[in-house]
Amino acid sequence: VSKPTGPSLTGLAFLQGDLALRAERIAAYLAESAVERDRAGGTAKRERDQFRSSGLLRAWIPVSYGGLGASWPEVLDIVRLVARVDSSLAHLFGFQHLILATLRLFGSPAQFEPLFRETAERELFWGNALNPLDKRTLLTALTTSADELSVSGQKSFCSGSVDADRLLVSATDAVSGRLVVFTLPSSRPGIRVFGDWNSFGQRQTDSGGVEFDKVKVDRQEVLSTPGPLGSTFASIRPLIAQLVLTNVYLGIAEGAFGEAKIQTRARGAAWPASGVERPTDDSYILLRYGEVALSIEAARVLSDRAALSLQAAYQREDKLTPDERGQLALDVAAAKVTSARASLDASSKLFELSGPRATDAKQSLDRFWRNARVHTLHDPVDYKLKELGSYALVEQFPTPSFYS
Amino acid sequence: VSKPTGPSLTGLAFLQGDLALRAERIAAYLAESAVERDRAGGTAKRERDQFRSSGLLRAWIPVSYGGLGASWPEVLDIVRLVARVDSSLAHLFGFQHLILATLRLFGSPAQFEPLFRETAERELFWGNALNPLDKRTLLTALTTSADELSVSGQKSFCSGSVDADRLLVSATDAVSGRLVVFTLPSSRPGIRVFGDWNSFGQRQTDSGGVEFDKVKVDRQEVLSTPGPLGSTFASIRPLIAQLVLTNVYLGIAEGAFGEAKIQTRARGAAWPASGVERPTDDSYILLRYGEVALSIEAARVLSDRAALSLQAAYQREDKLTPDERGQLALDVAAAKVTSARASLDASSKLFELSGPRATDAKQSLDRFWRNARVHTLHDPVDYKLKELGSYALVEQFPTPSFYS
Amino acid sequence: VSKPTGPSLTGLAFLQGDLALRAERIAAYLAESAVERDRAGGTAKRERDQFRSSGLLRAWIPVSYGGLGASWPEVLDIVRLVARVDSSLAHLFGFQHLILATLRLFGSPAQFEPLFRETAERELFWGNALNPLDKRTLLTALTTSADELSVSGQKSFCSGSVDADRLLVSATDAVSGRLVVFTLPSSRPGIRVFGDWNSFGQRQTDSGGVEFDKVKVDRQEVLSTPGPLGSTFASIRPLIAQLVLTNVYLGIAEGAFGEAKIQTRARGAAWPASGVERPTDDSYILLRYGEVALSIEAARVLSDRAALSLQAAYQREDKLTPDERGQLALDVAAAKVTSARASLDASSKLFELSGPRATDAKQSLDRFWRNARVHTLHDPVDYKLKELGSYALVEQFPTPSFYS
Amino acid sequence: VSKPTGPSLTGLAFLQGDLALRAERIAAYLAESAVERDRAGGTAKRERDQFRSSGLLRAWIPVSYGGLGASWPEVLDIVRLVARVDSSLAHLFGFQHLILATLRLFGSPAQFEPLFRETAERELFWGNALNPLDKRTLLTALTTSADELSVSGQKSFCSGSVDADRLLVSATDAVSGRLVVFTLPSSRPGIRVFGDWNSFGQRQTDSGGVEFDKVKVDRQEVLSTPGPLGSTFASIRPLIAQLVLTNVYLGIAEGAFGEAKIQTRARGAAWPASGVERPTDDSYILLRYGEVALSIEAARVLSDRAALSLQAAYQREDKLTPDERGQLALDVAAAKVTSARASLDASSKLFELSGPRATDAKQSLDRFWRNARVHTLHDPVDYKLKELGSYALVEQFPTPSFYS
Repeated sequence: VSKPTGPSLTGLAFLQGDLALRAERIAAYLAESAVERDRAGGTAKRERDQFRSSGLLRAWIPVSYGGLGASWPEVLDIVRLVARVDSSLAHLFGFQHLILATLRLFGSPAQFEPLFRETAERELFWGNALNPLDKRTLLTALTTSADELSVSGQKSFCSGSVDADRLLVSATDAVSGRLVVFTLPSSRPGIRVFGDWNSFGQRQTDSGGVEFDKVKVDRQEVLSTPGPLGSTFASIRPLIAQLVLTNVYLGIAEGAFGEAKIQTRARGAAWPASGVERPTDDSYILLRYGEVALSIEAARVLSDRAALSLQAAYQREDKLTPDERGQLALDVAAAKVTSARASLDASSKLFELSGPRATDAKQSLDRFWRNARVHTLHDPVDYKLKELGSYALVEQFPTPSFYS
Repeated sequence: VSKPTGPSLTGLAFLQGDLALRAERIAAYLAESAVERDRAGGTAKRERDQFRSSGLLRAWIPVSYGGLGASWPEVLDIVRLVARVDSSLAHLFGFQHLILATLRLFGSPAQFEPLFRETAERELFWGNALNPLDKRTLLTALTTSADELSVSGQKSFCSGSVDADRLLVSATDAVSGRLVVFTLPSSRPGIRVFGDWNSFGQRQTDSGGVEFDKVKVDRQEVLSTPGPLGSTFASIRPLIAQLVLTNVYLGIAEGAFGEAKIQTRARGAAWPASGVERPTDDSYILLRYGEVALSIEAARVLSDRAALSLQAAYQREDKLTPDERGQLALDVAAAKVTSARASLDASSKLFELSGPRATDAKQSLDRFWRNARVHTLHDPVDYKLKELGSYALVEQFPTPSFYS
Repeated sequence: VSKPTGPSLTGLAFLQGDLALRAERIAAYLAESAVERDRAGGTAKRERDQFRSSGLLRAWIPVSYGGLGASWPEVLDIVRLVARVDSSLAHLFGFQHLILATLRLFGSPAQFEPLFRETAERELFWGNALNPLDKRTLLTALTTSADELSVSGQKSFCSGSVDADRLLVSATDAVSGRLVVFTLPSSRPGIRVFGDWNSFGQRQTDSGGVEFDKVKVDRQEVLSTPGPLGSTFASIRPLIAQLVLTNVYLGIAEGAFGEAKIQTRARGAAWPASGVERPTDDSYILLRYGEVALSIEAARVLSDRAALSLQAAYQREDKLTPDERGQLALDVAAAKVTSARASLDASSKLFELSGPRATDAKQSLDRFWRNARVHTLHDPVDYKLKELGSYALVEQFPTPSFYS
Repeated sequence: VSKPTGPSLTGLAFLQGDLALRAERIAAYLAESAVERDRAGGTAKRERDQFRSSGLLRAWIPVSYGGLGASWPEVLDIVRLVARVDSSLAHLFGFQHLILATLRLFGSPAQFEPLFRETAERELFWGNALNPLDKRTLLTALTTSADELSVSGQKSFCSGSVDADRLLVSATDAVSGRLVVFTLPSSRPGIRVFGDWNSFGQRQTDSGGVEFDKVKVDRQEVLSTPGPLGSTFASIRPLIAQLVLTNVYLGIAEGAFGEAKIQTRARGAAWPASGVERPTDDSYILLRYGEVALSIEAARVLSDRAALSLQAAYQREDKLTPDERGQLALDVAAAKVTSARASLDASSKLFELSGPRATDAKQSLDRFWRNARVHTLHDPVDYKLKELGSYALVEQFPTPSFYS
């Protein structure tokens, strides 16, 4: 069995110091069991707890609230580093931060401040039950006079829902029909987490269903100032989501490419018709390595640029203009499409670069492709290209939505 | 669970009548359990026995020897039909016929005639231990005066070796260093079949190792007239091998594409940004269907043409000229490269066409890609392109070898 | 200056005998002056007359009317052969036959029979003024009682309009608003042919504008039984148009590829980093030759199949069913998309295969790309892919129109 | 006629202030006559003089020598800006700076200082006769005692040789056989500039032949400290050359894409089958715009990064290590391959995006492709990919040469 290679900071532009140490440590830990856990699927309880004790669940929370004060580029570098060896856990780590950002972007200081403090202090792991495409959850109307609201219905694709300490939930307002987003402790009576995620890739993301049976929701828990996509600043939330995905894709590509090199270098003999002895001297193999290296490199520079753009936009807060938001959206779209393609390409070419012995099931090297294939279906790449095209042709920025 | 779709003759140019009925029947049978067996791996004992009783193991054997007298185009159509639902068994069926052809091409009538008769009469399933790249088996020199030869050593990638009734074996002549090919009953003392194949794709091909410990070989069992690649006619053997692979690839592509259609049509809603209600009206989905359909169609026409070329070459027997053989090799190369690409493309795009719900592990739809990925590594596609290029540029036909 | 290579029947499946001789002769003639005439643009008067005297303008006209009785596959082979050296004249020759077919498909025996006879006897060259997208020509209503109709207005993209003996014209019926198609002698008073075609490719197709100033149209000249796309059989007309284009594309690809080989073989030295002396031994060059060869080969087999399908459909006459027509449309679409891509690919790669010296303006080797680029814009390839996708996904045949 | 669009700083990361003004002014000037001059070919005497009076020929020369003190990123931005409208002149401007850099990198302060001063003061335009692949020029051996050396023979591909004030020349040392590089005033007796460049693209680069007939060469004119590629620092010269090419490619891509937008927006009607009225609403057109935009964007970020890497390496001077040089070479290779592809892609797709009317010869929109096609043949892209692959697989940096 080829032991999954440990992580290294190579190719990461922003991560360093203490944060890098913590990230490398957990990535090395995850690498040890990644193959087995891919096989097993289910909840990575031990690894989630390791994340809790690593301090990284509060990486991005400002120091003043007890966090590590990481920037977005640093957070996304951690996502990428972890995804090289375990793209399921990388996704959960990334979504932890997406949810924290959502508290900040959709909620008021009175809401996100205590949640930041509590998350930092108690190393809370957040799960996601925000899914605007699945409209089966209904919330008692916000406009009623009743103090107590209640949510019922089901949600699918709830990443990190098993073993979550808190949930971010979306539902439809029973009267207005509008999307409402709120937080819930996962222990709140009436919540049932199915734990039924069973995809052939991203197997430990616990992205199964959640059911709400007349679950009480306090008005204080509803993020309504400014609310979902309630301001230009709030509308960068989906762009953070897209960049988390982007860096998971890129990490998968880098992880697959790293394995390819190990495999090729370990091959005994070059293809007879090559006229050379070692595979590392085969002109065609070198050409194909160059192709994959180039596609990963292009994805990297575009993703790094988008990470910096996000950080700049985030720091603009309510001064962020729709055009600045639009430009960020384009940077993100370019990074995402390129990274999605690089992840599929590298994880499939891995085997052409490595040869047939790399297909031994014991090594599970197909997991890179399976993870890339499942995760890149989050939302269709063609519509991201259309957004890029609309701007190129008629200078129209993407309309803010939960996917653009 | 989406039950694997049964086979249909759509897209098959040559198969009809009784042969088609037998082929469809076994393909439907295989489809029932394909998902489970992919998960289990190992030997498809029941399914192999079904092949034995189907009569198809003697499909290509001339009627005069008790076979069904199928042509190469018909045999390859069966390979493709079966590969749509089970590319492991399709490979074994194809290699059964590759081995039968090898008896004819490398051996004398005194050798292949009784073997054809016996295979037909007893529905023998042949396994492959001919692997020129693995040089670990040694045969007592043919030039010694001893009546009895003996082979020792190991072979890897021996498809169909478990549960084989007969084996086709290659070894190196201890004195001349030349490749020798011979047949053995698998019950001959000293043969040990490891049954250790465990790849993430083509999981039921039993392509593991075989060990020979001083196994007796009768001179009569050695195929030496004309011997391996011993004449222009004999040298079409690797082209038959390549065409079997080609039709397995194509069957995988067609199988994956068929599943995609079922999935897309079953999807509830189109992507919100598409502006249409049904996925079947989404312009981008239709475009991508067109792309995949076209790549499969090109592979089909090139493969059908190569099948006809093979049949024509086969019928030329010893009148076959090196140039005719060369032209066939080019037809085969074109078909193979195109089919290999179509299989990888269709089995990966399947999910972009179908959406995230198609990744449910219960359906195992990733098996198409896993099978394509493993099987297309048989020999590097770039060297086939080089052969096509050498002919295009300087009109040099591929030099006959076990891979060209 | 590299003299354009003469034609050869290599790669043509159907052309032979007397027809082949005539076609090769005119192709060789055209090759002599192709470079100069590409530079000059304008009308190829001498070459058009050569076509007249070659007898090929009546190639497809049945022998009983004085023609050569060629089949569609033969006619399309001639288009391809000529396009290898002169894609402008190939287009005009192809459209001659498209127009002849239109007489047959849209008109009655009383109309097409004398026109066939006259065309054959007087070696008439037809020009095209049928362009459904350009709606600026108006015809006096067919429903009026007046014996004499009259057409006024302009048409663009009228290929072969200069030096045409007869014109096929489309106009809008002033009352019904429907498309009407009719023939006119080009000498009819009131017709003005602009001769203003000046594109950077397909420079001698005379595809400029034509103006009609109250031009008299006899009712007998209107093709109304069954009329434009007036029956399933009549609706194969646009498919013939598409196949003419397809074979022009393919001829361009083959012509460009042929020049590439001459250039590469003539190059003095390989690239220093290649480690070989001759470019013909450079692994990368051979790989790229293989890629182009394969794309052309795929286009060829698909186009040949479509040509046979067309012939079969044509022979079905009014027995042709919508599904048979639909299947032909799909065959044609597959051939067309593949050929369009092959022509752009081969004519651009030509230079990567050949090296910088091939860009010498004296040789005008860029004309292949310029011709391919202009001609492949006839109608968008993406919509052809959509048609292929619609059939693949929901088994819907392309709706007959002037472009599908 | 569509007037070529003027330049704009959009997409340029580094250019600003006075330098930007000068660059925009000359680009606007060049745009006015670009179409005509592409048609005419030959020497752009008036435009070259405009460059002389613009001050930009000394853009990069340090202020202390009378130059404008531009950084490499700024110089390369000017190359790109100019290439959007006139890639021939952009090449000459870029090579002016490549030659100036060569004086610095291959020569001693006693050599480059006066040449910098003289170039700045007299606005000298340098021409290139350094071509290591063309070995027909011979220099009297440096090792002879004679004070006066002499060069004889011919050079091909001498960009900017006509109307050059000074030449940079390479020749083979008659005794050692090594490459020698020296400068010459173009008025030196015995120099004959053929002015015979006539390619179908990059038509005004004057890249024709130069003949030297016993031309005297002063030892002082020979750049031998450290000499050609004579130190790690000196060996960044070819990387500057590659980055000049890269930015010419990118400028062509951007220029072509800019024209496409103008054309698409000007089109009257969408394709009938699109179901929309305006081409700017056609989903397929938007998708294709997105594809091209993305390929240009990836090329841009990689090129900008490489420009910054060059500047950093340049400032390291003799402290530059082979590994730092190697990393720069990889950055440059990635930028170059991506930009070369983007230029070919954008300049060909331009017409699919724009439709058939964009092929009107009056607009000469094919010049973008012709320029890209000719210029991207400078050295083969596959070998750049091989360099990227060699580093990826075995961490081997490109061996410094005149092309890597």
